Amino acid sequence: MTQSDDFTNGWIAAASCVALAFALIQFVLVSKVQVSNSSTSSTLLNAQALDDRKVHMLSWVSTEIANGAKSFLFAEYSICAVFIVVFGLIIFGLISWGQKSAQDGALTALAFVLGAVTSMASGYIGMMVAVYGNVRTTVAAQRGLSAGTGAVSMTPRGWSYAFNTAFRSGGVMGFALSGLGLLVLFIILSIYKTMYDQDDWDVMMEIISGYGLGGSSIAMFGRVGGGIYTKAADVGADLVGKVENNIPEDDPRNPATIADNVGDNVGDVAGMGADLFGSFAESTCAALVLASQSPDLKEAGWGALMFPLLVSGFGIFVCLISSFLATNIKQVRSADDVELALKLQLVATTVLMVPVCYALSVSFLPKKFDIDGVTSGGVSATNIDAFVCVISGCIGGLVIGLITEYYTSFSYTPTREVSDSCRTGAATNIIYGMSLGYKSAIIPVLVLAVIIWVSFKLCDLYGVALAACGMLSTLATGLTIDGYGPVCDNAGGIAEMAELPESVRDTTDALDALGNTTAATGKGFAIGSAVLTSISLMNAFSVKTSISGSLDDPIVLAGALLGAMLPFLFAALTMLSVQKAAGAIIMVVRKQFREKPGIMDGSEQPDHNECVAISTQSSIEEMILPGAVAVFVPFIIGFMVGPKCLLGVLGGTIVSGACMAIMMSNAGGAWDNAKKYIEIEKAHGGKGTDIHDAVVIGDTVGDPFKDTSGPALNILLKLISIIALTLSSLIDGNG
Amino acid sequence: MTQSDDFTNGWIAAASCVALAFALIQFVLVSKVQVSNSSTSSTLLNAQALDDRKVHMLSWVSTEIANGAKSFLFAEYSICAVFIVVFGLIIFGLISWGQKSAQDGALTALAFVLGAVTSMASGYIGMMVAVYGNVRTTVAAQRGLSAGTGAVSMTPRGWSYAFNTAFRSGGVMGFALSGLGLLVLFIILSIYKTMYDQDDWDVMMEIISGYGLGGSSIAMFGRVGGGIYTKAADVGADLVGKVENNIPEDDPRNPATIADNVGDNVGDVAGMGADLFGSFAESTCAALVLASQSPDLKEAGWGALMFPLLVSGFGIFVCLISSFLATNIKQVRSADDVELALKLQLVATTVLMVPVCYALSVSFLPKKFDIDGVTSGGVSATNIDAFVCVISGCIGGLVIGLITEYYTSFSYTPTREVSDSCRTGAATNIIYGMSLGYKSAIIPVLVLAVIIWVSFKLCDLYGVALAACGMLSTLATGLTIDGYGPVCDNAGGIAEMAELPESVRDTTDALDALGNTTAATGKGFAIGSAVLTSISLMNAFSVKTSISGSLDDPIVLAGALLGAMLPFLFAALTMLSVQKAAGAIIMVVRKQFREKPGIMDGSEQPDHNECVAISTQSSIEEMILPGAVAVFVPFIIGFMVGPKCLLGVLGGTIVSGACMAIMMSNAGGAWDNAKKYIEIEKAHGGKGTDIHDAVVIGDTVGDPFKDTSGPALNILLKLISIIALTLSSLIDGNG
Repeated sequence: MTQSDDFTNGWIAAASCVALAFALIQFVLVSKVQVSNSSTSSTLLNAQALDDRKVHMLSWVSTEIANGAKSFLFAEYSICAVFIVVFGLIIFGLISWGQKSAQDGALTALAFVLGAVTSMASGYIGMMVAVYGNVRTTVAAQRGLSAGTGAVSMTPRGWSYAFNTAFRSGGVMGFALSGLGLLVLFIILSIYKTMYDQDDWDVMMEIISGYGLGGSSIAMFGRVGGGIYTKAADVGADLVGKVENNIPEDDPRNPATIADNVGDNVGDVAGMGADLFGSFAESTCAALVLASQSPDLKEAGWGALMFPLLVSGFGIFVCLISSFLATNIKQVRSADDVELALKLQLVATTVLMVPVCYALSVSFLPKKFDIDGVTSGGVSATNIDAFVCVISGCIGGLVIGLITEYYTSFSYTPTREVSDSCRTGAATNIIYGMSLGYKSAIIPVLVLAVIIWVSFKLCDLYGVALAACGMLSTLATGLTIDGYGPVCDNAGGIAEMAELPESVRDTTDALDALGNTTAATGKGFAIGSAVLTSISLMNAFSVKTSISGSLDDPIVLAGALLGAMLPFLFAALTMLSVQKAAGAIIMVVRKQFREKPGIMDGSEQPDHNECVAISTQSSIEEMILPGAVAVFVPFIIGFMVGPKCLLGVLGGTIVSGACMAIMMSNAGGAWDNAKKYIEIEKAHGGKGTDIHDAVVIGDTVGDPFKDTSGPALNILLKLISIIALTLSSLIDGNG
Repeated sequence: MTQSDDFTNGWIAAASCVALAFALIQFVLVSKVQVSNSSTSSTLLNAQALDDRKVHMLSWVSTEIANGAKSFLFAEYSICAVFIVVFGLIIFGLISWGQKSAQDGALTALAFVLGAVTSMASGYIGMMVAVYGNVRTTVAAQRGLSAGTGAVSMTPRGWSYAFNTAFRSGGVMGFALSGLGLLVLFIILSIYKTMYDQDDWDVMMEIISGYGLGGSSIAMFGRVGGGIYTKAADVGADLVGKVENNIPEDDPRNPATIADNVGDNVGDVAGMGADLFGSFAESTCAALVLASQSPDLKEAGWGALMFPLLVSGFGIFVCLISSFLATNIKQVRSADDVELALKLQLVATTVLMVPVCYALSVSFLPKKFDIDGVTSGGVSATNIDAFVCVISGCIGGLVIGLITEYYTSFSYTPTREVSDSCRTGAATNIIYGMSLGYKSAIIPVLVLAVIIWVSFKLCDLYGVALAACGMLSTLATGLTIDGYGPVCDNAGGIAEMAELPESVRDTTDALDALGNTTAATGKGFAIGSAVLTSISLMNAFSVKTSISGSLDDPIVLAGALLGAMLPFLFAALTMLSVQKAAGAIIMVVRKQFREKPGIMDGSEQPDHNECVAISTQSSIEEMILPGAVAVFVPFIIGFMVGPKCLLGVLGGTIVSGACMAIMMSNAGGAWDNAKKYIEIEKAHGGKGTDIHDAVVIGDTVGDPFKDTSGPALNILLKLISIIALTLSSLIDGNG
């Protein structure tokens, strides 16, 4: 069954516009929580009104965080702008030369620029909403406290009020990014479509894949730079504050506190957003390129070609509907409801996607179609096969998410064992955490292997790309949950800095208890989709260069060995970058404490801006080297050794990087939650014990694992693959 | 140029006999250091004579360690015996069925049994000599002290006396193992040769490769079981002794002290010996199989076929000559000479091998010969090409060794930086150590990639096997240095337990200062040779199954992804095994301290045997699961999914396992030496500071890294590859 072009376009446009509108509605709902001392802004709740000083403090802190975030993004985007111009010109030159058409070159470069700019815009929107939502979550948590005197605790309505504020802040990013990414891609497609004949749609789709390259390139800056920033500020603030001067975390006297809170947004919001946007753009473009090479699909019309975008578009509708589950239908009424609410989101979205994808496959794809690829003679597939591919990715994503939760949440045995291991000191904590990380890679890798195998058997390379699109179809939900974590984390920091009652901090802590788990789950998705996307890109590279890189060919194997080492190099570089950048921050903080001795008794104000500035500067500097590795390795290997070795490098990097990224994210998440288990659940005596000291060491080791090196590996996989693919037409003769 | 069979055989037999004779001479020299209170046994030195009580204590301690080592080996070998019988029968059945010849099956099984028994004998000899040499090194260190009163220090002659004792103990193992391994293989070849026509030598060589399988299987038990034992005893002894009861390391009151000292021998001596013997046997057999498939080499005669054995044989002569450098020519006269002496060994052996290998290539190989392999049509090679292959492995091994030294010795920046990082606590120590480990994989992996590429280009698969033989040609030197470390380490433990003057312990500590570096260097060799050996085996698997596993084939890639995950699984299992086994020891030690309160004041004797028994039992139990993974994965993937996926698994395991093994060995070595830098060189204030506490945590984390999980990965690579190869004739139809 085929559908008219307008029908297809209508649905895609509608989905992206609905996403943007829904993001706006969420934003309006968040903005109703006013940072003021009047409780009239919310007729629902009215606990102790805030005094003027605290209101002032709240808005000052949140403004400082917002300004810090902006100044980091400004610095990062300045570098990005230079990169976009230079790389855009290179792309223009390479493609014009390779395709012998300046128009193709210019349009590819334009798609690249649009992908990059969309990524930057998404990161900016996500960050601004997160720093807008964090203080409102603090206020909501304060308003949700029971009125009256005596033991102060959160009311059930207070819980849902505070939870919804944070959740909706995350939702603004989730829906804005999904909608924007889809809309811009759709606009490019609609315009370029007028410039190419139907026969040349395969060329056109290759040109459009510049959009994916743009998205990934910016993601590298976001993930690597942001990852370094967030952990350098965290480590720097903790070491001088907690360790050297014995003041609590997020104490306003610590000059690095604002930088630390900025960091949560820079890494987890802007970085994660850019990363997932990159995966979305790349996997969708890969699917479009492969679809356009099938005469059957081209003949079946625009609707059949646009199937991957339709999956994303209807994914937005599904995510939108299931978001009401958390905010309205099954509201959070106590701390214990938070975990269920978030898990329900993931499960419900995936379950709803099954019939939706089935309907889409049957409605838009032809019953039977042939697909080219690496299988000689191609594959003859049905629309049901395509449905299975999409859904294998979608369900695989959920399984990876749930496994991640199992390994990183302190509701389950593994993380509790990490806590228990602290009874014999920090060393056993590290050993248990590492083993947990290693073990946690097993099932996700098995799941990915099965997805790859099934989807390839059914639809060859197109199947793998569809599986990636399927995994990312629940992007809006994934990003909502990802954004939720740092918002709650920041809300707690703000409560601390504004010296609100301890119960406010307890509430935000409870909301954030799952923050590490949701972050790890999000990273699981991000890694899974990055692996599938990279494999699509690698296969496309192998098809375009007509290279078959067998593992029994030593040049391929030598490449694979080098490739397997790259994630190690990348991890080392990023971990050391965090240390160096943290060192720069520590120097500044120490200097301030020395030069302004009044900071400690409150008679002098620390200079937060100096810390923000140094964090920004040093993380941007430290981002260069790892970034250069990811960008230049494909050039060096491709041109100096040849495409066979490069194929080996891609394979080695993907397989070893996937395992390592999962290991680092999960070990880091488990260490952090092992700490929370002791702090929140008062396991093993809680804070102030030797066991707590031991668990803090694991948490500190885990920080760069989960927030810098692990996530940066996703980018390495994708970037190295897409750059290889971009170079493919130039290096296929060197083999 | 070709040589007569007798001439060839004569040299090989001579080399192996000379090695055994030299091992005996070294043993006699070591045995001249008598554990007695008379100083007449050595006319060289006569410091303070030992009193009777101390002599009694010395011999009691060393006997206990020897008994503990024997009881572990007995327990381990009982399991091995069962395994040998069962697996021998399986091999007999599989090969008889596959080759349709019961004779072939029986001879393969026989070769397997001989390989296994040789490995066990080598481990036993190494261990017995190590526990014989350790107490003699203690005595030598005591006798080397300056006579008279006042400040007691080592005399230059004392230094060389003590060093030579330890070095020669290592040498006994090095030469006995090299000689025995070569001799048994040579005997098998000589006998089997009478049973097969020259036309069937290719079949014969495949049958003989059962020798390699036997060697590797036992290595698994040695490395995994020994690795778990050594670290479980170490961690158990330290936690209850140092941490809970605040008594120094190696204090005789600690019931686990003997087990701890046994462990050093079990892991580093018997385990390392079995591992390297396995690599030697496998790579030589792989080279023999490939050589016998070349009609040109067969025609050139026995001498040409035996080239790999000649390389090993002449390697023994070279190692023998260069060993005099350390013991006689450039004697150790002070603590500072130790590092140079050991490094000189490695360099001199490699440099001498170059002309020797050249002469061998020219004398025994035909000028030109064709070699089959994966390159279609085969490769036409010269004897100089073969020389380059051998020497690339030999020099590559040296480079890997030197890089390992750079990263793990505290004479260089990286390890010092790890020490420095302890100023900001244990967490930064862990982060720096991990990054160091990751970085340290870069150059070794590059070196391996270059070796693979060069040797393959020149002689196809035969070249890769020759490179592995080249790397292992300096085996005797490598093992000597490997054995030297644990002997010195034990010597220190014995000095402590026998309550000898502190300067004796200082001397053994200085001798052992490089112990971690030499151990890491040895591990570098072991990993490098394991990678080359595994690649030869994997390629042989691909040739035998006629499978070309391209990375763009998703079933291969899915396999590679699973394969890349296996080292993670293996590392997790072995790390957790250490923890569990350590837990069992801790229970026993705690129980003894509780039930015999007199232990602390010396009025009651701790029961060392109970700790040795529990260490043995729990490490043997914990060895089963990781071992089963390595053995059964090829069966499961091969029979249930097919050979293409299995090829992917092999490739993924090799590339990710190589990087991870290097990382774990070097990070562990660096952490241990960062601690020694603080303890021996008194950096950052020495013992008793917060910095020392931090550095100890890194050391404890590094223990299972470097001594259990890292080395066990070598075995995983080799075992999984050789089992796949053994199964190849049975699974090639499942595609």
